[in-house]
Amino acid sequence: MRLLNYLNNGKRSLGARNGDNIIDLTSAGLPDNVDALLAQGASGLAKAKEAAAKGGATTPFKGAKLLPPVLNPSKAIAVGLNYIDHAAESPYKDAPKYPVLFHRFPSSWVAHDEALIKPKVSDQFDYEAELAVIIGKAGRYISKDKALEHVAGYSLFNDGSIRDYQFKSHQWMIGKNFDKTASFGPELVTADELPAGAVGLRIQCRLNGEVLQDSNTEHMIFDVATLVSTCSEIFELVPGDVIISGTPAGVGFARKPQLFMKQGDVVEVEVEKVGILRNGIKNE
Amino acid sequence: MRLLNYLNNGKRSLGARNGDNIIDLTSAGLPDNVDALLAQGASGLAKAKEAAAKGGATTPFKGAKLLPPVLNPSKAIAVGLNYIDHAAESPYKDAPKYPVLFHRFPSSWVAHDEALIKPKVSDQFDYEAELAVIIGKAGRYISKDKALEHVAGYSLFNDGSIRDYQFKSHQWMIGKNFDKTASFGPELVTADELPAGAVGLRIQCRLNGEVLQDSNTEHMIFDVATLVSTCSEIFELVPGDVIISGTPAGVGFARKPQLFMKQGDVVEVEVEKVGILRNGIKNE
Repeated sequence: MRLLNYLNNGKRSLGARNGDNIIDLTSAGLPDNVDALLAQGASGLAKAKEAAAKGGATTPFKGAKLLPPVLNPSKAIAVGLNYIDHAAESPYKDAPKYPVLFHRFPSSWVAHDEALIKPKVSDQFDYEAELAVIIGKAGRYISKDKALEHVAGYSLFNDGSIRDYQFKSHQWMIGKNFDKTASFGPELVTADELPAGAVGLRIQCRLNGEVLQDSNTEHMIFDVATLVSTCSEIFELVPGDVIISGTPAGVGFARKPQLFMKQGDVVEVEVEKVGILRNGIKNE
Repeated sequence: MRLLNYLNNGKRSLGARNGDNIIDLTSAGLPDNVDALLAQGASGLAKAKEAAAKGGATTPFKGAKLLPPVLNPSKAIAVGLNYIDHAAESPYKDAPKYPVLFHRFPSSWVAHDEALIKPKVSDQFDYEAELAVIIGKAGRYISKDKALEHVAGYSLFNDGSIRDYQFKSHQWMIGKNFDKTASFGPELVTADELPAGAVGLRIQCRLNGEVLQDSNTEHMIFDVATLVSTCSEIFELVPGDVIISGTPAGVGFARKPQLFMKQGDVVEVEVEKVGILRNGIKNE
């Protein structure tokens, strides 16, 4: 099942994507967003599946006004340097021995098809194709072998970065949290539609059609189960929490010459079987 | 005015502290928490002041069940190494040339008089006395000379840190975000009760009565106006956002021998004119 948040005639609604169409699940009695559905646990997902199977009123996916697939997670944790080739191209060089974790505020991301905003104070606006992991079941101190039971599904994330700000100090937070510099979506693909841990999936970033990142989720240093387990040692993970699992080599900052996104560009993140996340770039 | 969130006969309420008592402002028609009051802007604070002046039903402050003075800020930004003497005692040594910014999730803090939780996976639970700045008026790209107009008031924060986790990678996020390892409160002291920018106030941390940090807010490297201005260059600051302005020298990690908090300890953060934030320590 592919769940999404969208505006249906201006009204926030929960939808299930069915090929080229979105089935309205809110008019079938379900909550009006994915966060609230996930808060219901497994029974929420079961009800959504049943309602989606019945069908009902649809809207074309193309041209629909989507919202991010999770609107206000209590935590969105991003993973740095989680592909060996990207660690090697970074200023840090070595592969990390422990996951490098930072976070993003929801104010820092937009939905599929919504414009990413290049801030006026920087020209170093970089892309990062990532697989996002969405938690469906709460837990603390989750063991690796149970970790995937806590994952509701997966989505796509463009971990857009303002590089000069990222390195103004040793803490990356500000370079990763400019308003509307990342994107998230288009939809939550439930875990049952993908290989366990979403492993073995091709991951790409394209800028104006040119492939700039091209790898496979099997090259993550810390796999999804390890990331869930590690995060849950720090804090309780709760439904809707997002783990943004890192980007492979090919970012603009590490290229010679460097390549950054600018107004009018179109950037796409694709992960096999998960979908395509597309955004245009606009100046602030 | 000193505003707080508390449980009044089990019901979440907004209160104004009047010496040893709390005046219930919610029964006077105001919202049931500080976040919602701040969202009303200057008129909310004016209404609270009027209601507090009228008086009404009170509860003794001593023994009251307080909640954090902001319940769910959209952003809580903490500042690292913002006192020269603390930078010097840290592994980084040099004073930063740009504010070192990270963040804390609301799940990482408790209220005044609530137990701080030492996680079972670490014995390196450290204290950090800090002044918290609470935003009252939204803004982006706020200039330094206008910055203090955006501050609703101040509070106290114990930026509790799990040091071994903080340094597992170069990103501090996890060491600063274990569940219930920080504290925030007891109340929001409106800016009009303090010197401009809360400058020139003595700041202390005491553990079981022993003074371990003792400095003055005038020794901040980046003052409150600079921190507000810098943060607002990254994202829009909105009412309720919190800037936790850094700690002076004397943390347990930098002592010889090192000193960490353990079950049964009582830690106090005090800033002159702002108040005292007191917490006991419990094992997880």
